[in-house]
Amino acid sequence: MPDNANSGTSGKDLFAELNEQLLEAQFELRKAGKGPVLLLIAGNDFAGKAEVIDTFYQWLDNRFLNTRAFALPRGLEKQMPPFWRYCRALPLAGEIGFYLGSWYHQPLRKFSRGETSVKRFTAQMQDILRFERLLVHEGATVLKLWLHLDAEDEDGQARSEKTQTSETIAMREWSDFSAADYQKVRSAAQLMIDLTSVGGAPWIRVAGRDAGQRDLEIGQLLLDTLRSCLNDEKQTAIPRSWIPSTRPRLDELDYSQALSKDDYKALLEHYQNRLRELLKHPGFARRSLLLVFEGTDAAGKGGTIRRITQCLDPRFLRVHGTRAPTDEEKLQPYLMRFWRRIPRPGTIVVFDRSYYGRVLVERVEGFCTPAQWQRAYGEINDFEQQLRQAGTLVIKFWLAITPEEQLDRFNAREESPLKRYKLTDEDWRNREKWPAYRDAVHDMLEFTSTENAPWHLISSENKKHGRIEALKIVCETLEQALD
Amino acid sequence: MPDNANSGTSGKDLFAELNEQLLEAQFELRKAGKGPVLLLIAGNDFAGKAEVIDTFYQWLDNRFLNTRAFALPRGLEKQMPPFWRYCRALPLAGEIGFYLGSWYHQPLRKFSRGETSVKRFTAQMQDILRFERLLVHEGATVLKLWLHLDAEDEDGQARSEKTQTSETIAMREWSDFSAADYQKVRSAAQLMIDLTSVGGAPWIRVAGRDAGQRDLEIGQLLLDTLRSCLNDEKQTAIPRSWIPSTRPRLDELDYSQALSKDDYKALLEHYQNRLRELLKHPGFARRSLLLVFEGTDAAGKGGTIRRITQCLDPRFLRVHGTRAPTDEEKLQPYLMRFWRRIPRPGTIVVFDRSYYGRVLVERVEGFCTPAQWQRAYGEINDFEQQLRQAGTLVIKFWLAITPEEQLDRFNAREESPLKRYKLTDEDWRNREKWPAYRDAVHDMLEFTSTENAPWHLISSENKKHGRIEALKIVCETLEQALD
Repeated sequence: MPDNANSGTSGKDLFAELNEQLLEAQFELRKAGKGPVLLLIAGNDFAGKAEVIDTFYQWLDNRFLNTRAFALPRGLEKQMPPFWRYCRALPLAGEIGFYLGSWYHQPLRKFSRGETSVKRFTAQMQDILRFERLLVHEGATVLKLWLHLDAEDEDGQARSEKTQTSETIAMREWSDFSAADYQKVRSAAQLMIDLTSVGGAPWIRVAGRDAGQRDLEIGQLLLDTLRSCLNDEKQTAIPRSWIPSTRPRLDELDYSQALSKDDYKALLEHYQNRLRELLKHPGFARRSLLLVFEGTDAAGKGGTIRRITQCLDPRFLRVHGTRAPTDEEKLQPYLMRFWRRIPRPGTIVVFDRSYYGRVLVERVEGFCTPAQWQRAYGEINDFEQQLRQAGTLVIKFWLAITPEEQLDRFNAREESPLKRYKLTDEDWRNREKWPAYRDAVHDMLEFTSTENAPWHLISSENKKHGRIEALKIVCETLEQALD
Repeated sequence: MPDNANSGTSGKDLFAELNEQLLEAQFELRKAGKGPVLLLIAGNDFAGKAEVIDTFYQWLDNRFLNTRAFALPRGLEKQMPPFWRYCRALPLAGEIGFYLGSWYHQPLRKFSRGETSVKRFTAQMQDILRFERLLVHEGATVLKLWLHLDAEDEDGQARSEKTQTSETIAMREWSDFSAADYQKVRSAAQLMIDLTSVGGAPWIRVAGRDAGQRDLEIGQLLLDTLRSCLNDEKQTAIPRSWIPSTRPRLDELDYSQALSKDDYKALLEHYQNRLRELLKHPGFARRSLLLVFEGTDAAGKGGTIRRITQCLDPRFLRVHGTRAPTDEEKLQPYLMRFWRRIPRPGTIVVFDRSYYGRVLVERVEGFCTPAQWQRAYGEINDFEQQLRQAGTLVIKFWLAITPEEQLDRFNAREESPLKRYKLTDEDWRNREKWPAYRDAVHDMLEFTSTENAPWHLISSENKKHGRIEALKIVCETLEQALD
């Protein structure tokens, strides 16, 4: 251990040396675009959580530090999935984020007050683990610190005046846990630590009594973390050999279904009126709707979406066309840009293409590794489950056409001035990869059709039929949910 | 007029043709990355504002439409500058934005209720004009529509059943203005239209009685607007010949000021404690602080900032290092990324470099046109005035050193492992342009030192002196403001 060999070093030199190494590692992290490194700081209010962060602000380049202190959820935050507010504020790659009141805070608080059962708490911890796993797989490093005091300190008697003063000012009104609550919290915290100290992101207990010792210890932990992040020393999941779906649902579909012009007009009016009525239901103010549209190129996503959005109030609607991620979006886990766009209560969001790009275009074109797209099925299921639990209805459509029909439509597009802009060279290239896309679609349909968010596979060979089917499914799903 | 030559064209054909042309123009707008085109829709609640937007959602590609409906400001919005909420949600270049309840809505509402004086209202309209001018100069096109009913309709008697139904549902709870209020609003609106119908962004009155006629008219207006945006047919301000500042403030500065180590330590402790105390002042919860740090390379911005942020609670602090704009930021006016980062009440934001880059690096390096940087002085003054009016204290520092001192520091940085990362090739290149930067600094100091947001020019030749000066100014400004 070369750092300790120099045993005559005074405390001040140790700090200076650590500071230098930390600054260097922070600079390298930024240059390499790795990370982010997230430091979750929890524990006893009197063990100096705020002081630790202050120390890092003195040591590190503040421009790339990102402190987030989350108090009890308020207003809109209460109505959204619990991870939403964290996803909105996730530091970018190259940055270091400090979290006070992280995603553990609320479940632990409620559990320690006896407001949730062990079963519910355990399930929440599992959700968190899966969320952290997503972050870690996407390049983040998560360091979770639990600051504690010695036994004799934990009644809050023996703390130094300095600690008391700064904690009182900085932390009391934030009030993670008061000293009186702390005893109750201890056993809850122990369960939390047991349940969530896993491979990539273990909890580390740090004694908070001696401020200098504490900061030195945490500084060293951060340094080690930054270095292992830089060296990619993370356990990466080894992809199991892929067992693809065996159910060729695209081939099983009946592409002959059609509607006459008159029937179409009547049904369109019928379902559009029904949809308008359903959205006026007072219960919808507490729910929200996410419509995911995927499909073969030229299957008619745009037209189908338009038949639905015609009934919707533009003020409560957002249609997002999913394109390649921007520079900034590339510095975050792929799901984050969708997390940020989930609907608020009483509103509707339409994704014209979506996060499913991970298991479709990114898989087929090799824009991500096999490990990444194979993991994505589970990550996406988790994401949609979070949405459902917060009251969002997730309705997913795959609009399918045959290769022959696609060719006809491509040719027609080349000739029509109104549609010319819809056709790109990429469309022709994708068409050549039809078999690879078909396999990807089959896997997606099989591995992400969950009870709460099933896929609706619709033939759009006859556009009128496809549009009415989609409208009908939206109406029926809403009707069932609002009953 | 080729469009009308075909005089036998039925209404339906007219719509279809307009639709095709609009889609084409929307596509071209996106391809060229021009715009955004903003459509402000105001006027009588019964004239079909929501219906107009519905029509465009049927005609255009929804993915690049952006509807924003602003109701009365709530919560945080009330405490921030009025333009903040609009800046947060500005559509990107290539998009079309619809605004209900635009920046005109609140001033007009208050004025028509007799809650603001003519003088105040006129001042607000001037603020808006300057804000719109910024948007237009930065590439946006603003189309302002006032929908009105015919005289006999304006009492709300003669409207068609269809209009009534959809307006009642869609607009009543939003309630731009109720029918009863409308008479009072008319004269106020007339004044608004008179005051703000200027060159780049005039108000256009559209009759709302006949829905088909109305949509056709607005559709044609939007088409013309898209086309002139595509053809850059906007009045661009012609730069007047530039009259530079004649006051060489950098040369007048006393660079010999210094502090001994002991004095520095004592003063640092003194002012840091004072700053900590000041921020606990109950009055600060309603104010906020924006610290802008600019200065010569190697002048010691980082160290000075750190001496200030050491006293601050990281939870209420954000330090933003200003870098080159991201892809997405490039699609918006240059001030928008700073608008989005202004402090909330009770918090502190530090810009380590800032929007002043427009008149410094962008001017010197030719990243913007002379017209753009010459306009920027006024735009920045407006921005800071908005901040001040909302209670934000804006404190701006230029940290100055001599060329000789800079050379010494550059050489020292090359040798120090802790500071090596601070020095880039760009720093050496900038150094060669010292005279050009000096001129830019002199102009900036002269043209953006306003009563409310003066520049503080500090010698950082002796770092200790510079740090204490900055701390002292922060303390004194806060003290004065909180008194």
